[in-house]
Amino acid sequence: MAPRPLQPSHQFIGGNLATNAGGPSCLKYGVTRHWVLGVRAVLGTGKEIRTGSLSHKDVAGYDLTGLLVGSEGTLGILTEATLRLAPIPEARGTVVATFPSLEDAALAVQQVRQAGITPEAMEFMDGATLSAVDDAFSLGLQNVQALLLVGLSGHRLAVAQETQDVYRLLEKGSLRVDLGLEKNEIERLWLARRSAFGSLARRAGNLWVEDISVPLSSLATMVRKIDLIAQKHDLLVATLGHAGDGNLHPQFSLRGEPDEEDRIKEAIEEIVSLAVSLGGTLTGEHGVGQEKRDLLPSALDQGAYKTMEEIKKVFDPLGIMNPGKVL
Amino acid sequence: MAPRPLQPSHQFIGGNLATNAGGPSCLKYGVTRHWVLGVRAVLGTGKEIRTGSLSHKDVAGYDLTGLLVGSEGTLGILTEATLRLAPIPEARGTVVATFPSLEDAALAVQQVRQAGITPEAMEFMDGATLSAVDDAFSLGLQNVQALLLVGLSGHRLAVAQETQDVYRLLEKGSLRVDLGLEKNEIERLWLARRSAFGSLARRAGNLWVEDISVPLSSLATMVRKIDLIAQKHDLLVATLGHAGDGNLHPQFSLRGEPDEEDRIKEAIEEIVSLAVSLGGTLTGEHGVGQEKRDLLPSALDQGAYKTMEEIKKVFDPLGIMNPGKVL
Repeated sequence: MAPRPLQPSHQFIGGNLATNAGGPSCLKYGVTRHWVLGVRAVLGTGKEIRTGSLSHKDVAGYDLTGLLVGSEGTLGILTEATLRLAPIPEARGTVVATFPSLEDAALAVQQVRQAGITPEAMEFMDGATLSAVDDAFSLGLQNVQALLLVGLSGHRLAVAQETQDVYRLLEKGSLRVDLGLEKNEIERLWLARRSAFGSLARRAGNLWVEDISVPLSSLATMVRKIDLIAQKHDLLVATLGHAGDGNLHPQFSLRGEPDEEDRIKEAIEEIVSLAVSLGGTLTGEHGVGQEKRDLLPSALDQGAYKTMEEIKKVFDPLGIMNPGKVL
Repeated sequence: MAPRPLQPSHQFIGGNLATNAGGPSCLKYGVTRHWVLGVRAVLGTGKEIRTGSLSHKDVAGYDLTGLLVGSEGTLGILTEATLRLAPIPEARGTVVATFPSLEDAALAVQQVRQAGITPEAMEFMDGATLSAVDDAFSLGLQNVQALLLVGLSGHRLAVAQETQDVYRLLEKGSLRVDLGLEKNEIERLWLARRSAFGSLARRAGNLWVEDISVPLSSLATMVRKIDLIAQKHDLLVATLGHAGDGNLHPQFSLRGEPDEEDRIKEAIEEIVSLAVSLGGTLTGEHGVGQEKRDLLPSALDQGAYKTMEEIKKVFDPLGIMNPGKVL
């Protein structure tokens, strides 16, 4: 009984699998790991292994696929992956709302999810981000303090109804809400969101990008505290993120001031510590890498961290796989 | 920075987590592992570890949660789990169809999924199963050769439309298709499906239950081959399963005949071997346990199996966790 070589439905080599990548659509569709049926990997021992099968219901032994996906190249090099596919959603809709503050937008996000609606994405940007984005795209958002984009997808009838439902929910706490925007206007707003990092970097020259997650119930608190922590350390912060997942990207501008990097590091340690104490994580989707390697032990349960070290030794006894990263 | 103890949203101790349980609804909602945010576990070392966080986007280190879920108690004892919750679907619909054979039903299942529709569940039963079920529930299905239940769930407008779409797709290859059944009739059919194991056992006294998965494209082939393999070994087989996932439960009746168990074992080895060679797995949801322990090495890639053995040693160096199971 020789297992048949996997027939990969898609060849996909790189960072998405190595970091168990996230992004805006995880809210409805889950993270990368949920879509990987199996991988082929070369371990630090030089041995090649093949995990999983073509079945998404497969409980034959331990979940090596899930272990390799998201291991940031520190356990092995993925040379092939078999992905589960889903039909492209039939329809999409977008509701756009502005708020007096990012905290107000966070509360609105919570309200939408409490109403039992699961959009594909709920993305928000604060005033500092919008100002930089507006410099690049001239969207008339220069003085807006918070913008929320709610993207819905799925069956056309469901999307049509849910778009109305979200509109009505957002009418209350927002300054303005739109659902009937022209297609190209909507596309420009999503492009602006996707280009927020670039827009901020264009203005600041250099950015320090953070990546924490908190439970949705703590999102508004976290957003407020980020601003307070930045003020305390006399730093310029711009916050945006995948609000529906509680995944935030506060970004610190590097202005070439003395001891700036130290102050940013202190601020980040406070932000990460707060996120973890709220039940969240120090990295939602960008990974541990080099930058957060020293923060990881204190963010995790001690026994869990030790177990990860032991697993690393199994896959990579010589420590040659992406050395200096994660652990 | 001390990680906050997880606030479990639900206490859930037992087999569902240990086996990464499946069931009918995985087709739309995924397997158990996708819904576990973190666990607390006591390992074979006697140490307790806590994994994960309250965020479903969390890439801080390796996926110990996914490793422990589905490990059948062989890596540690789960003492707590934090689950991700989703809103209860607003609406449900069921389409019921009968076919000349289970193979025809399998082809219809493939057609529904090819049309881009993702029902919550697609369950089917063959004539032998239906006859036993009818003995217990008197549903007038005594001479039906194959019954397919398609359960749809989600937004009420989407469910209403998709129910019509599925009806129209099934009209072609089926003998009869219904979507307007009375609520209590539908409930009886789902109850009958859920009671199929019991109904078969009631008749046969003793059953040998199988649990393979194959890719959907091979479902019809697999169904036909199961019957041929049973005939070859002069065995009574009844097949039912989660057709939409390609997860089949052929069941062999034990009639107290000489060398019956040996013949069943031979048939199962052939079935398992075929499933694996088609890109599927020897266990879709029931786990490896004791029964399939000897079959596992030849069903998996050799290097993957060896890696699992090494992982077992990390979690349970003395081999005291559910000994004799899985590996």
